[in-house]
Amino acid sequence: MKKPLLALAALSLVTPAIAQSSDPLVAIADEALESDRIAWDFVEGITTEVGPRQAGTEAEARGRAWAMEWLAQRGFQNIADEPFEMDTWIPGDLHRAEVVAPYPQPLVIQPLGGSASTGPEGLVAQVVYFENAAALAEAPEGSLTGKIAYISHEMRPSMDGSHYGFAGPARWVGPGIAASKGAAATVIKSVGTDYHRNPHTGGTGFPDGVTPTPAGALSLPDAENLERMFERAGNRPITLKLVLTPRDIGTQTSGNVVGEIVGRDPSLPPVLLACHLDSWWNAPGAFDDGAGCGIISAAALNVERAGQPLRTIRLLLAGAEEVGLWGSRAYSEAHIDEPIAVAFESDFGADRIWRFETNFRESNPGLHAKLAASIARFGVANSAIVASGGADINIARDQGTAIIDLQQDGTRYFDLHHTPDDTLDKIDPAQLRQNVAVWTQIAGILANEPGAIKGGE
Amino acid sequence: MKKPLLALAALSLVTPAIAQSSDPLVAIADEALESDRIAWDFVEGITTEVGPRQAGTEAEARGRAWAMEWLAQRGFQNIADEPFEMDTWIPGDLHRAEVVAPYPQPLVIQPLGGSASTGPEGLVAQVVYFENAAALAEAPEGSLTGKIAYISHEMRPSMDGSHYGFAGPARWVGPGIAASKGAAATVIKSVGTDYHRNPHTGGTGFPDGVTPTPAGALSLPDAENLERMFERAGNRPITLKLVLTPRDIGTQTSGNVVGEIVGRDPSLPPVLLACHLDSWWNAPGAFDDGAGCGIISAAALNVERAGQPLRTIRLLLAGAEEVGLWGSRAYSEAHIDEPIAVAFESDFGADRIWRFETNFRESNPGLHAKLAASIARFGVANSAIVASGGADINIARDQGTAIIDLQQDGTRYFDLHHTPDDTLDKIDPAQLRQNVAVWTQIAGILANEPGAIKGGE
Repeated sequence: MKKPLLALAALSLVTPAIAQSSDPLVAIADEALESDRIAWDFVEGITTEVGPRQAGTEAEARGRAWAMEWLAQRGFQNIADEPFEMDTWIPGDLHRAEVVAPYPQPLVIQPLGGSASTGPEGLVAQVVYFENAAALAEAPEGSLTGKIAYISHEMRPSMDGSHYGFAGPARWVGPGIAASKGAAATVIKSVGTDYHRNPHTGGTGFPDGVTPTPAGALSLPDAENLERMFERAGNRPITLKLVLTPRDIGTQTSGNVVGEIVGRDPSLPPVLLACHLDSWWNAPGAFDDGAGCGIISAAALNVERAGQPLRTIRLLLAGAEEVGLWGSRAYSEAHIDEPIAVAFESDFGADRIWRFETNFRESNPGLHAKLAASIARFGVANSAIVASGGADINIARDQGTAIIDLQQDGTRYFDLHHTPDDTLDKIDPAQLRQNVAVWTQIAGILANEPGAIKGGE
Repeated sequence: MKKPLLALAALSLVTPAIAQSSDPLVAIADEALESDRIAWDFVEGITTEVGPRQAGTEAEARGRAWAMEWLAQRGFQNIADEPFEMDTWIPGDLHRAEVVAPYPQPLVIQPLGGSASTGPEGLVAQVVYFENAAALAEAPEGSLTGKIAYISHEMRPSMDGSHYGFAGPARWVGPGIAASKGAAATVIKSVGTDYHRNPHTGGTGFPDGVTPTPAGALSLPDAENLERMFERAGNRPITLKLVLTPRDIGTQTSGNVVGEIVGRDPSLPPVLLACHLDSWWNAPGAFDDGAGCGIISAAALNVERAGQPLRTIRLLLAGAEEVGLWGSRAYSEAHIDEPIAVAFESDFGADRIWRFETNFRESNPGLHAKLAASIARFGVANSAIVASGGADINIARDQGTAIIDLQQDGTRYFDLHHTPDDTLDKIDPAQLRQNVAVWTQIAGILANEPGAIKGGE
């Protein structure tokens, strides 16, 4: 067996405890690190056979059908597609930006989720530069009338993804602020960290009473090109032609796919493992979140292979996460009266897990410590940070129950997030397997935990 | 001064000879390594202020005007735009591919230069897989009637770019072979080495008597996705819808931009430094070949700063290279009766020069050795390979004169070559400066060489 040096060092420290446990789960988790194929099979399958899965569309429905068949073939029980209604936005066909003057040339752009349409003829307007969303917020009311706001930022890669918090407002609230000040449209520097001609889309929102405007993201190279134009143009205005034709198609049906490994005592609250099935239209969603669904499915099957667990393990492959957590809310509404024991989600790519967090470190220190120790051999650090959970486990927050975060290395995540580049080739099979090993170990311990877990710190 | 260790080691070996030379050229080349801004200014300027420069179009003409103004502002003499006529192809607006069955999803595609149009309605046909162009060549005549040929390859990055020779036929001759066997269209795996959703375009050709068909390149992730579909589909046919709308727009005018640093003895044959100004429509052409034009311009200005050279240094910023070396041929035709002393070109990106080659190592060993020794301190290796010259110095081959190749590290080149990703951010300023230093040193020695250089081995 080849292991990273750090993992080997960790292994030598904990080997006696493991040897005493004589737990088949340990062997199965170790085996997953070396040779798991289940998670890869899921993510290769859904990205190849289904491709992009924009929420509320026929493609997302094909994704649900594909996933249900995959789960059934592997022996999951109580598989269901739990439908819900949602407001549905689609990107349309025309996504173009073109500098008209003073430096005529095309720029690569894609619409933000929730963007209005320019119509196929497009709009032409002067562009006004803002260093970030905070600078835009200080622009006088009405000062942008008829203009296009351009919003920059200074996002950098970070292991915990925390720069998303610094840069994200450019997308999350920038177009709404610009529209409220009279802007005809908004163009942002993609909220991302790569340098490829692949824009980062993602949802934006407009405040109540503000009419949505067209809003798009330039790829990072195009955004920096536009910024150089501002430097070179001096006082000359920069004029942009923008053609974006997304549209709202009203209420559509999406759904959450669920499936179970039924436990020996189905009366006990289940362990909930979550991911999301939808992706943006522009990529087959390998990192976000085909990998996550593969990881949780593989872990559940591995736990079962170690022996039928005490508690039921329930998978939630949520629908319509990207466009506003519709699936997460629908699941919580439908199941709020069915207590769950603990929930955790995989939705931050496919790179290795490096940190372990719970919301029961103080309320259930023994279990927290046992879980943390069990995955030290995979190079995962313990942490005092209180877990808040992924987007699709609203139910755990709504029930005030136990939550775990298995934090992945996010250094590469925002190179790919919401771009056309979120494709299978980006997944490192060895790191994907490490995820499966860690999830197997954690899910296996929890599914065999007889006592109440007591979360909600 | 910070230098790489290897360069420092080389410097310590040759310092005595340099110190004896008391040549200001040496100091200026060393300075360029540390602080040249000229090459960057050119490539930043043309990529920002002009952008893509498809041969024969108004954008390429703007590129010529921009370059002439830039050269004039920096004191070049005898600046001219030497026009020539060319058959002109443009890419059109619609570039779409979509798997219809069995795994419906869009694929990212761009047309190859010379591709015919499918018309805006597109065509739908079964795809037939070929491992490479050689496998396609073995397909029976007529066996592809009405089908789309898909051609793969196994290109890998290589420092000398030599894998282009293995993989290139998929693009260069694949569509022509497929068309000759009745194919309705051809789709290739991009001839490149990256994994981004940015196809590699480039010219293709159809044999005499074979009607051109639509031909496009899938990005590498899309090509591999299609190949996985073949593996998963078993005997089920894979059907593709293809929409590509390029067109020929007949004879247009392009041009070669020339400019000179006039020597003390203009009767001596000049030193010719070349690059090309055009790019494919899909990128602003930073690596290919804005950087090359910046490097040669900076070198010429640096040589002049060391003192007016004996020979004239002539720049050739060629037009219409990408689509068939129209500028190179036009320049040779126009100037075939004006002997040049030696020619070399920069057209392989902006990464460091690592190897020195001439075609006069045996006919003029003293000069070859002197040149090789002069750039050892920049980490450049000597070589017995006979230089054949870049695409735009047809005149040197036609005259049978001296040629030099300053070989750049091509490991990254085919990540970017002919893709939308050929943008300014890909240029490493330190490596760009190393190019300028080497070119300054070589051009400076040659421009002050009194004797005939005797090339053409």
